[in-house]
Amino acid sequence: MKNAGNNVFPIFDELLQKTDKEELLKQKSFTVWMTGLSGSGKSTIAKGLERYLHEQRFLTKMLDGDNIRVGINNNLGFSEDDRIENIRRIAEVSKLFINCGVITLNCFVSPTREMRQMAKEIIGTDNFIEVFINASVAECEKRDVKGLYAKARAGEIKNFTGIDAPFEAPTNAAVEVNTAELSIDASIQKVLNYIIPKIENN
Amino acid sequence: MKNAGNNVFPIFDELLQKTDKEELLKQKSFTVWMTGLSGSGKSTIAKGLERYLHEQRFLTKMLDGDNIRVGINNNLGFSEDDRIENIRRIAEVSKLFINCGVITLNCFVSPTREMRQMAKEIIGTDNFIEVFINASVAECEKRDVKGLYAKARAGEIKNFTGIDAPFEAPTNAAVEVNTAELSIDASIQKVLNYIIPKIENN
Repeated sequence: MKNAGNNVFPIFDELLQKTDKEELLKQKSFTVWMTGLSGSGKSTIAKGLERYLHEQRFLTKMLDGDNIRVGINNNLGFSEDDRIENIRRIAEVSKLFINCGVITLNCFVSPTREMRQMAKEIIGTDNFIEVFINASVAECEKRDVKGLYAKARAGEIKNFTGIDAPFEAPTNAAVEVNTAELSIDASIQKVLNYIIPKIENN
Repeated sequence: MKNAGNNVFPIFDELLQKTDKEELLKQKSFTVWMTGLSGSGKSTIAKGLERYLHEQRFLTKMLDGDNIRVGINNNLGFSEDDRIENIRRIAEVSKLFINCGVITLNCFVSPTREMRQMAKEIIGTDNFIEVFINASVAECEKRDVKGLYAKARAGEIKNFTGIDAPFEAPTNAAVEVNTAELSIDASIQKVLNYIIPKIENN
């Protein structure tokens, strides 16, 4: 910085852009925002997507409760305010990844239209693909992989979406996957059919 | 999910690891944590690093006030608690990027040893490279690119590091760059000399 004045080194004034990173990675970046009840299959589908895309040499980042709630959002609870702040931060993290050329695979219940709209506004409409992982409360409760529905019924968890808190189904998701009707493979394939043409950066 | 029981699809139970992403990107991932006074040259050096590494086809993500304070941390101020929370979230974001194989270039004053130690613990010692961008208060105040020192002297900004809040210099940074003595190019080169051997993923 010796003798550095204004505009002496203008090249350093400009950061690399999303398009530069996309060119490096040979892909387009965006967020696949999966919304649906606990147990509907969001993370299972995301893991399948990530593995398939990795094999095709695309770079993705899966974001879900397992790496968000124990990390950046470990100081948030499940009050209304905290659930909104949870989604806000997730959307901001997604934006950082997108601007780095990375495709994010987001798995969050995100039960209200307001939350998803906020995420969409932060991330940007063009970079936001809403995927509705649809399965009824009865179906998810039957699966109850994590035992959360049983706890919610027993009153041990309050404000549990589908039991004592509402889930507002998306009305115009880009893709809807009914996991009570489709196999895991078919569910993954349905999402891939939609996103693969958007990834290819020609 | 039809008929899905425990361990029916074990392949989906495992997420891709840091090493899988590093293999895809042909690089090792870690955080280059640049600490130093406002105006010491952190962001200028990071921009140079990012541009050089991009030309070498390495994927980096620069994190600084410009994309953090207006985004994920837009609800934080400059109180002691908020400054710690600021650094905590930045470290958690860095960890997400590292686990995705991406090298992060972090430009934050991060004035106390406690803050940097917290960041190091979150990110992991093996993934944390501390770089001290060293320039005296007098030198930084002379540059005063953003006019912040003048405001701090006028009392318009409180708790400004170097003026009315302390900066605890690192005692064992991996690299130290004195930007009052070195040119921008030489400063960038000094950091590159240290990190390039660590990036190459053979």
